[in-house]
Amino acid sequence: MEARKVAIVMGSDSDYPVVKAAEETLRSLDIPFFTRVLSAHRTPAAVAELASGARDSGVGVIIAAAGKAAHLAGVIAAHTTLPVIGIPIKSSTLDGLDALLSTVQMPKGIPVATVAIDGAENAALLAAEILSLGDDILTGKLAAKRRQMEANVLEKNRHFKDEKGFSGND
Amino acid sequence: MEARKVAIVMGSDSDYPVVKAAEETLRSLDIPFFTRVLSAHRTPAAVAELASGARDSGVGVIIAAAGKAAHLAGVIAAHTTLPVIGIPIKSSTLDGLDALLSTVQMPKGIPVATVAIDGAENAALLAAEILSLGDDILTGKLAAKRRQMEANVLEKNRHFKDEKGFSGND
Amino acid sequence: MEARKVAIVMGSDSDYPVVKAAEETLRSLDIPFFTRVLSAHRTPAAVAELASGARDSGVGVIIAAAGKAAHLAGVIAAHTTLPVIGIPIKSSTLDGLDALLSTVQMPKGIPVATVAIDGAENAALLAAEILSLGDDILTGKLAAKRRQMEANVLEKNRHFKDEKGFSGND
Amino acid sequence: MEARKVAIVMGSDSDYPVVKAAEETLRSLDIPFFTRVLSAHRTPAAVAELASGARDSGVGVIIAAAGKAAHLAGVIAAHTTLPVIGIPIKSSTLDGLDALLSTVQMPKGIPVATVAIDGAENAALLAAEILSLGDDILTGKLAAKRRQMEANVLEKNRHFKDEKGFSGND
Amino acid sequence: MEARKVAIVMGSDSDYPVVKAAEETLRSLDIPFFTRVLSAHRTPAAVAELASGARDSGVGVIIAAAGKAAHLAGVIAAHTTLPVIGIPIKSSTLDGLDALLSTVQMPKGIPVATVAIDGAENAALLAAEILSLGDDILTGKLAAKRRQMEANVLEKNRHFKDEKGFSGND
Amino acid sequence: MEARKVAIVMGSDSDYPVVKAAEETLRSLDIPFFTRVLSAHRTPAAVAELASGARDSGVGVIIAAAGKAAHLAGVIAAHTTLPVIGIPIKSSTLDGLDALLSTVQMPKGIPVATVAIDGAENAALLAAEILSLGDDILTGKLAAKRRQMEANVLEKNRHFKDEKGFSGND
Amino acid sequence: MEARKVAIVMGSDSDYPVVKAAEETLRSLDIPFFTRVLSAHRTPAAVAELASGARDSGVGVIIAAAGKAAHLAGVIAAHTTLPVIGIPIKSSTLDGLDALLSTVQMPKGIPVATVAIDGAENAALLAAEILSLGDDILTGKLAAKRRQMEANVLEKNRHFKDEKGFSGND
Amino acid sequence: MEARKVAIVMGSDSDYPVVKAAEETLRSLDIPFFTRVLSAHRTPAAVAELASGARDSGVGVIIAAAGKAAHLAGVIAAHTTLPVIGIPIKSSTLDGLDALLSTVQMPKGIPVATVAIDGAENAALLAAEILSLGDDILTGKLAAKRRQMEANVLEKNRHFKDEKGFSGND
Repeated sequence: MEARKVAIVMGSDSDYPVVKAAEETLRSLDIPFFTRVLSAHRTPAAVAELASGARDSGVGVIIAAAGKAAHLAGVIAAHTTLPVIGIPIKSSTLDGLDALLSTVQMPKGIPVATVAIDGAENAALLAAEILSLGDDILTGKLAAKRRQMEANVLEKNRHFKDEKGFSGND
Repeated sequence: MEARKVAIVMGSDSDYPVVKAAEETLRSLDIPFFTRVLSAHRTPAAVAELASGARDSGVGVIIAAAGKAAHLAGVIAAHTTLPVIGIPIKSSTLDGLDALLSTVQMPKGIPVATVAIDGAENAALLAAEILSLGDDILTGKLAAKRRQMEANVLEKNRHFKDEKGFSGND
Repeated sequence: MEARKVAIVMGSDSDYPVVKAAEETLRSLDIPFFTRVLSAHRTPAAVAELASGARDSGVGVIIAAAGKAAHLAGVIAAHTTLPVIGIPIKSSTLDGLDALLSTVQMPKGIPVATVAIDGAENAALLAAEILSLGDDILTGKLAAKRRQMEANVLEKNRHFKDEKGFSGND
Repeated sequence: MEARKVAIVMGSDSDYPVVKAAEETLRSLDIPFFTRVLSAHRTPAAVAELASGARDSGVGVIIAAAGKAAHLAGVIAAHTTLPVIGIPIKSSTLDGLDALLSTVQMPKGIPVATVAIDGAENAALLAAEILSLGDDILTGKLAAKRRQMEANVLEKNRHFKDEKGFSGND
Repeated sequence: MEARKVAIVMGSDSDYPVVKAAEETLRSLDIPFFTRVLSAHRTPAAVAELASGARDSGVGVIIAAAGKAAHLAGVIAAHTTLPVIGIPIKSSTLDGLDALLSTVQMPKGIPVATVAIDGAENAALLAAEILSLGDDILTGKLAAKRRQMEANVLEKNRHFKDEKGFSGND
Repeated sequence: MEARKVAIVMGSDSDYPVVKAAEETLRSLDIPFFTRVLSAHRTPAAVAELASGARDSGVGVIIAAAGKAAHLAGVIAAHTTLPVIGIPIKSSTLDGLDALLSTVQMPKGIPVATVAIDGAENAALLAAEILSLGDDILTGKLAAKRRQMEANVLEKNRHFKDEKGFSGND
Repeated sequence: MEARKVAIVMGSDSDYPVVKAAEETLRSLDIPFFTRVLSAHRTPAAVAELASGARDSGVGVIIAAAGKAAHLAGVIAAHTTLPVIGIPIKSSTLDGLDALLSTVQMPKGIPVATVAIDGAENAALLAAEILSLGDDILTGKLAAKRRQMEANVLEKNRHFKDEKGFSGND
Repeated sequence: MEARKVAIVMGSDSDYPVVKAAEETLRSLDIPFFTRVLSAHRTPAAVAELASGARDSGVGVIIAAAGKAAHLAGVIAAHTTLPVIGIPIKSSTLDGLDALLSTVQMPKGIPVATVAIDGAENAALLAAEILSLGDDILTGKLAAKRRQMEANVLEKNRHFKDEKGFSGND
């Protein structure tokens, strides 16, 4: 059976500098994905079409990134029962708080799995965790990534002791 | 030519205690209207249908009231070039700030005319002001309402002087 | 009958870099407008005069842009029953939240149609939507603008596939 | 020479439960005052008239209380060079933050002396401090009030030791 | 193969009035689950143990509900690569904003799928959506629930027309 | 050598319903303490005197509780090099955010150890942790308290399984 | 009789780039003033001494500027019954909201007249308005300044019409 | 008896530009310390190990610095009864408010002594104040530091009078 894909949708191509971290993370885990620029407000029909047909076309998770009054994730979630992950994008005012509240405060019945403001990498990891439920190989890759992260942090301690000497005054 | 109607849409019937003030204000100005309960997330097709056909069915202004991640006004605005007025509804947390930002912070291209949190009366007055552009009788009614408001406030001063005596210690 | 004009008022000429997007949008729709720098606090008499006489001098909608304790739109609305659109302007602190709340949280009786912080283009589009009620040609232009916006977004998908290749790893 | 009066203006008579603390404080200091209900939006002409004529009619300080998009103090300040004290009033949403920002964030040139949300007593004390500059008797009363406040707080310590015994476990 | 379970963890039993809506939703979908009271701060070892062993003991999704500095979901996520859903719980101050930010603003590498403040029902629906990827029967139940929600909203319109008559003044 | 005492200072006796939890916690750990009502603004001299003399009179930690523009902890900290713990008190508006920021955002040079809004119990525990550095018996009591808390939480799981049955649908 | 002076106090010399606008405004009105760097936390004795003796040494108004947990204005107000004007200074985080709340939310009994974040010019104008009560010449200067401001704003309209042509498309 | 050490832990090495001010302050007071990069989420085991063993290995105070959903201080506090000081770190959005609330709003039972956003120097001073309880020499150093700070501020007044001349227009 073919692995399920991740659909990445962003409300504007100006969101791409943030969103590409999701693509990179999915690539590093060999998870198939495709990316689209679609706006809940400017292309409502295309959004509804993509969301409605996603499950049948092999999509497993949809990641939606949008700023300001970020309706994209919610509107997508209204058209599918696939898990939808929302990335609130910081824009020129309010530091992303508008996008965060517009994405996370969904009314009863239509959930959006919201990650941190500009949290594209975590959106991809969350998608991977979801897809890992039926996939032992992906489960193993996620575990390896965690061990690598842990090792990287611990390595910092050795590294910095030499360069910056912030290991104290003992 | 028949006067244009106002369409009032609320995301949940629990918003009605706030929204009915809009109905009362429209009635006081003899503006035709109809009210619907429709959710951007739970009934996206019905919302799109109402919004898309509104102009041709004699609607002039759409008022949309919703709480939390209040996408209703924005989603309606995506399907019509009629003016759409958004009323952010206060819900159980965050005092309506989530609904306000979700309603007002619309991206370029699709405006929503946002009024105060729970500001249903002002939404109706704004609809009336919009419809008054082609309607001298309505213009006259709005002017009369203003004069009445002014008189009511000034009357308070006479009234309170006697009852509460807050007119000073002269 | 002559088309109604839009009056654009800004509280300070330092708001012009934001406000000019409203002018450009109105020009693109052939809507007549004029622009003034008037302050609710520094030129209250001129503001009251402009607002009071606006309807009789052929104005249909007033757009008011101001920052900080942004009283301009509300003060204009107090002197006219024309629809008044408020643009909250971001200034050096608080990211425009002060201007947003000062503009949108109007008390009962005097509405202001508030758009996003720095949302000058949407203010003009909202004015156009209001004026379109009695104007089939303008209605057509707005519909065309929407179709153009939709096409532009969809075009991004084709465009970016080539340049940045963010259409996935299929 | 007659002592200067304080003018108290509130945007709505619903603000009176808060505002009356200002009256009581002024009475306790024998400062002459009068109170009016006037709205920046519903009675702009009356507000301008009161503010413009205040200095010549013997007013020394104007206290203005308003909620939501609280423009009252700023609009009064636009019409006088008397010191204007603003009391932001908490209303049904946003806990008074909207009124605070609308009152305090005044643009350059037109100051409003803002006190705490619902801080009517302090508004009156501030007015008294301002009027005390030319008034040794009032200066003495303010000093006495301070000594009394200090004694009251210190007295709590004696009082509570007996009743609640919260003075420790020594 | 046995269906994967949902583990519900709440930081305090005082969160149960909110959390039980998640239980009810899971029950309505026949999704197996168990509930625990465990605190990231008061029982860190038990939290780590539950999270570390969850995947191997048949858990597919973990829902974590906590208020204030809500670390529970993040700490659980640190010990598993299963998808973790966080419910920020409103407590006695700050209206749940502290819990929301503490839950959603996770650093790179460890995602938490955050739902609305007190959004227990949506947390359960999101868990169901995740589990539905390998489960056609659950997919069908979710689709049926959506149709039912849609019908319920549309029914309101008929219902209210008779009872409250809010369908307009035509 | 006599154990160092904790001084508890509150800005107003209206803070006592919150503050008494600190007293109860200190009593449960047999830590000597005394409590005073002193205001940074109404009794500045008494505050300065208490803070300046605290170290020499056997005080080890000062806990200061205040609401609104909560200057008490900072003003005390300005007069002593003892550790000062600040409890921001929630008052009638802004949900304690004003007190939190006024307490925690101290400038360089004068720290205040801030706990959660209304976090009186934690203030006392923090004081106990500080005093435990030179006190093995107190260290033991704190460890026992932690074990008791952990047991209490774990006990909830047994308890609730019977009463409310929230342990799942297995 | 000699005119009363304004005392300007700032919490840190890093506030001077903001505060100097107050000096310039006072100079333009020929109001005598002096400026000091004094910290509520680092130099509490000097602050208390300045505030306590201010009235007797000919000071009429004290302006206090501070950032973060801005206690300076409140602490000064605790030591004098002169009117104290607080300028909240924006620092490296939170955009001045911490300083605003720490300055304006004063408890009952000790008012601080708060102006906008970084509002040094308005602080000086407010001081001038206060001092103008006993000073006809200063009253005249303030009125002239207002007329000049009004003229400057109106002049912008003429000026911009030529240069930028933003006066419309008539 | 050997002096107790301070353990400084930061969630990411990108926090070091802020955190190093804590190191410098501790060095200036001759307080032994060591610094580690450890993440509550990426290295939970190492964090638990460090915190659990800290008291027995001679640590007296732990300083924990983290940004965003800053769980580090709370997670450390869950594993020790030593006083834990939290430094909320400002990151790319929300100006540190997320880190502040995640650090300070700890639930009952597990306190974190929170300092200002990016307040590394004050974290070190607070640690020094805590350690000074059993250390007269350190007490003396802290008092000397305070006197030096006071002198530095007062010196500014002399200094600036000459250079910038902001001491008034007397």
